[in-house]
Amino acid sequence: MHRTKVKVVEEALDANNTIAAANRADFDRAGVKVVNFMSAPGAGKTTLLERVGADLGDVRVGVLEGDVQGSMDADRLASLHVPVTQLNTDPGFGGECHLDANMVRSALGALPLEQIDLLVIENVGNLVCPAEFRVGEDARVMVSSVTEGEDKPLKYPLMFRTCDLVLVNKIDLLPHLDYDLDKFLYYLDQVHPDVPRMLVSARTGEGIDGWREWLQAAATPEGALA
Amino acid sequence: MHRTKVKVVEEALDANNTIAAANRADFDRAGVKVVNFMSAPGAGKTTLLERVGADLGDVRVGVLEGDVQGSMDADRLASLHVPVTQLNTDPGFGGECHLDANMVRSALGALPLEQIDLLVIENVGNLVCPAEFRVGEDARVMVSSVTEGEDKPLKYPLMFRTCDLVLVNKIDLLPHLDYDLDKFLYYLDQVHPDVPRMLVSARTGEGIDGWREWLQAAATPEGALA
Repeated sequence: MHRTKVKVVEEALDANNTIAAANRADFDRAGVKVVNFMSAPGAGKTTLLERVGADLGDVRVGVLEGDVQGSMDADRLASLHVPVTQLNTDPGFGGECHLDANMVRSALGALPLEQIDLLVIENVGNLVCPAEFRVGEDARVMVSSVTEGEDKPLKYPLMFRTCDLVLVNKIDLLPHLDYDLDKFLYYLDQVHPDVPRMLVSARTGEGIDGWREWLQAAATPEGALA
Repeated sequence: MHRTKVKVVEEALDANNTIAAANRADFDRAGVKVVNFMSAPGAGKTTLLERVGADLGDVRVGVLEGDVQGSMDADRLASLHVPVTQLNTDPGFGGECHLDANMVRSALGALPLEQIDLLVIENVGNLVCPAEFRVGEDARVMVSSVTEGEDKPLKYPLMFRTCDLVLVNKIDLLPHLDYDLDKFLYYLDQVHPDVPRMLVSARTGEGIDGWREWLQAAATPEGALA
């Protein structure tokens, strides 16, 4: 008698990872690359998307907007004529503090996957739980604003450790802050050595060209990380 | 036969609220008032405590420092010769994104309750889940930095709705931001009409006297809200 032994690995028991893999397979079939875009509240995710969303050349971008409540960010992005899908996490008391794979899966039917090459998922503003839940992304980008202080890589290590690009935003404010950029970069290298990082200002446009090019590369079959 | 009917209310089933009430009873017995201090990452909670911690007159303050990982904030506050107890939430994969009543309870034995009049619990930096978990506090204070944008009350309504004081921090940066303070205050009044608010700068010291006086009043038997 032929017998097959199935080894149950811990990851297979993790329902979130199972659903994330299913999402990833659907995105791959549709030829859509996916970026999970994360930061603390108010670090500038939406403004950084506004800066480049209408100007990615041949790349057709769509946005899945995660918020506890409301659609203020989606409304801002829709004005760029970019397809935006809103996902709210507040069926419960105070709302979920992150997106998980199942929430993203519930939005799949509403995403115009055949009309886009790149999907940016703007996660809920939070430096803890979004890092714990894969949603089916190809790459993770996080924004760290210089107004938040230099110590954030050490205080929220999983977020900084699991991302593929760090956008250091609001650098136009550096002359007005007691912020030591070298110290931030030193802490960043302690938790995630050599992770790509870009110094940007969504307000003045400084460094935005590099961010645009990174997104364009992320939409290619090879991806930005190749 | 005498029969007693016990009505099980939803709140009684909520283990967190039950434990929070037990914490509150212990704090009351010790004559210690408790402030739950919350904000997004990097809004300035620790700096606002550094500004006043050593200078509260007759009020003896202690701090319970909640962080996912590390003790950087506790180290900063300990240099003020204020008793500080560190509580880390990272036994799991990425750590908990908030303090709950049971975590605070687990720290009770380490708190020098007989030596203090006021305990400030510095929560994990997050605008979602900390608002959902009472920990046994008398009052809730939140910090909203002007660098985070005006829209935060509408995006994180539970946090703004359940607090007793809003510190609007980093106002020294207003000349360098596209931030409409009137719009923020309008949004704040939409979710929590007439909640006390103070405009402060932990960096320059502007408005800090009012914050110090609020904490001193919070430590009185009547509390700051009387």
